[in-house]
Amino acid sequence: MAAERFGRWRARSEAFLDTCLPDAATAPQRLHAAMRHAATGGGKRMRPLLVYAAGHLLGAEEALLDAPAAAVELIHAYSLVHDDLPAMDDDALRRGQPTVHIAFDEATAILAGDALQTRAFEVLADSPAPDALRVAWLRTLARASGAAGMCGGQALDIDATGRQQSLQQLTAMHELKTGALIRASVRMGALAGGADTATLARLDGFAAALGLAFQVRDDILDIEADSAQLGKTAGKDAAQNKSTFPALLGMDGARAHLATLSEQMHAALAGEGDAAAPLAALARLAVERGH
Amino acid sequence: MAAERFGRWRARSEAFLDTCLPDAATAPQRLHAAMRHAATGGGKRMRPLLVYAAGHLLGAEEALLDAPAAAVELIHAYSLVHDDLPAMDDDALRRGQPTVHIAFDEATAILAGDALQTRAFEVLADSPAPDALRVAWLRTLARASGAAGMCGGQALDIDATGRQQSLQQLTAMHELKTGALIRASVRMGALAGGADTATLARLDGFAAALGLAFQVRDDILDIEADSAQLGKTAGKDAAQNKSTFPALLGMDGARAHLATLSEQMHAALAGEGDAAAPLAALARLAVERGH
Repeated sequence: MAAERFGRWRARSEAFLDTCLPDAATAPQRLHAAMRHAATGGGKRMRPLLVYAAGHLLGAEEALLDAPAAAVELIHAYSLVHDDLPAMDDDALRRGQPTVHIAFDEATAILAGDALQTRAFEVLADSPAPDALRVAWLRTLARASGAAGMCGGQALDIDATGRQQSLQQLTAMHELKTGALIRASVRMGALAGGADTATLARLDGFAAALGLAFQVRDDILDIEADSAQLGKTAGKDAAQNKSTFPALLGMDGARAHLATLSEQMHAALAGEGDAAAPLAALARLAVERGH
Repeated sequence: MAAERFGRWRARSEAFLDTCLPDAATAPQRLHAAMRHAATGGGKRMRPLLVYAAGHLLGAEEALLDAPAAAVELIHAYSLVHDDLPAMDDDALRRGQPTVHIAFDEATAILAGDALQTRAFEVLADSPAPDALRVAWLRTLARASGAAGMCGGQALDIDATGRQQSLQQLTAMHELKTGALIRASVRMGALAGGADTATLARLDGFAAALGLAFQVRDDILDIEADSAQLGKTAGKDAAQNKSTFPALLGMDGARAHLATLSEQMHAALAGEGDAAAPLAALARLAVERGH
């Protein structure tokens, strides 16, 4: 039942996202095609699903959630394009497809990432939501994406390459690098449903645990899985001497950490009833996923 | 008198911009320092001045203009950082200083540009202006910056490298690459003053002519000036076989084109009285500047 709902939301989000991207047949074609390559290449669409699921909990109309769901995915897509660049992680494959700078070229990848980021904010500003809600979304997404959020986390990650991080440092880095955008997804959905301050705070606790759980699971998968299964180069963290949760806690310790985060997530949703089922299912997915 | 006012606005804008940039003493320090290097390295501050000058024409309070002035400068700063990257224009000098990827490194330059862009939208979303005005600013700036504006113009410029453009193609490219942001500056200032649709359209005509005039003058200067005077590598357009206005029109033709644009600008301001003096002075500056 959750899977069916997620399939519908994913299709809805991808259809709306398609309307947010420029036509690859109009100039500048190469830029437009690169933007589409980056944003329409599949993926789990975890962030849009979180927007819809948090909105669902608060009773928001689905149509109102299309813009924030697309916006957060555009930010995520831009970050992957730039992270994959030769000067950054230098990845040639993403979701089993050539990365943007491989499929196109480096200059186009830089520009496509830039334009995808801009488009995220434009989609929010253009949405039919009330002005106050648009401003609240824009503040939430900008804060989560910039130097005090995702970009800052990426910078901390680069700073840490080649040297050991403490558990505290590793956690702080992931809280920014991936956590900030996951929290923004939940918050934007909740804002659309008119959540009060206490609810926003409780859901933020849920989202913070979810972001970390996602990363701990990623680290465990990186060690367990092989390249073919992941569609990306496996064992790369270890090869780059990057700190990971299993490296710092051991595999058993990492699995125990994941279980604790799972409990925190379910505690944050306790007493919410059926409306919380999609968020709870996404929490399970983050903890149990095989890729 | 105009120079004194511009000096005051420039100082005001730089002081506000400083409050918009993260502290270089806090982590991630390298990212923060790179953002400051990019945004506080001087420059003419033409775009902030346009915001204040257009706001002045409409009687907007100066304090209301600080956020859009800073936001457009942050977008401009980010675009320079990314344009200077090795995969793009590969420039080592900017305003006589090492570019960000030279002073820091390429990964940091990519991230600093990304975070400066994000910050532009965050500054607008965080401003104390009414919600409707913030949304109008955000729409204006996002549209001007993205694939249908500055980024698109940069992509057209890259597509055109190494081959001749027609005057129409060259104009269309510059209208996006530099014109869109100049038009957004004027529009954001005018919006702050509550300009009606007719006034917005007339000022947009002014700003469109100003953007082109700025570029025609730049092309003329590129040929006339030497490296020392410009603080950047002169004659580079010709060396890269890029189309320019003097190349297509001849130097006399380019100067005549500039004179026509100047007339268009002054016609657009006719009948506005003293309040238009700063915009008129900026128009003269764009046409007559020596660097």
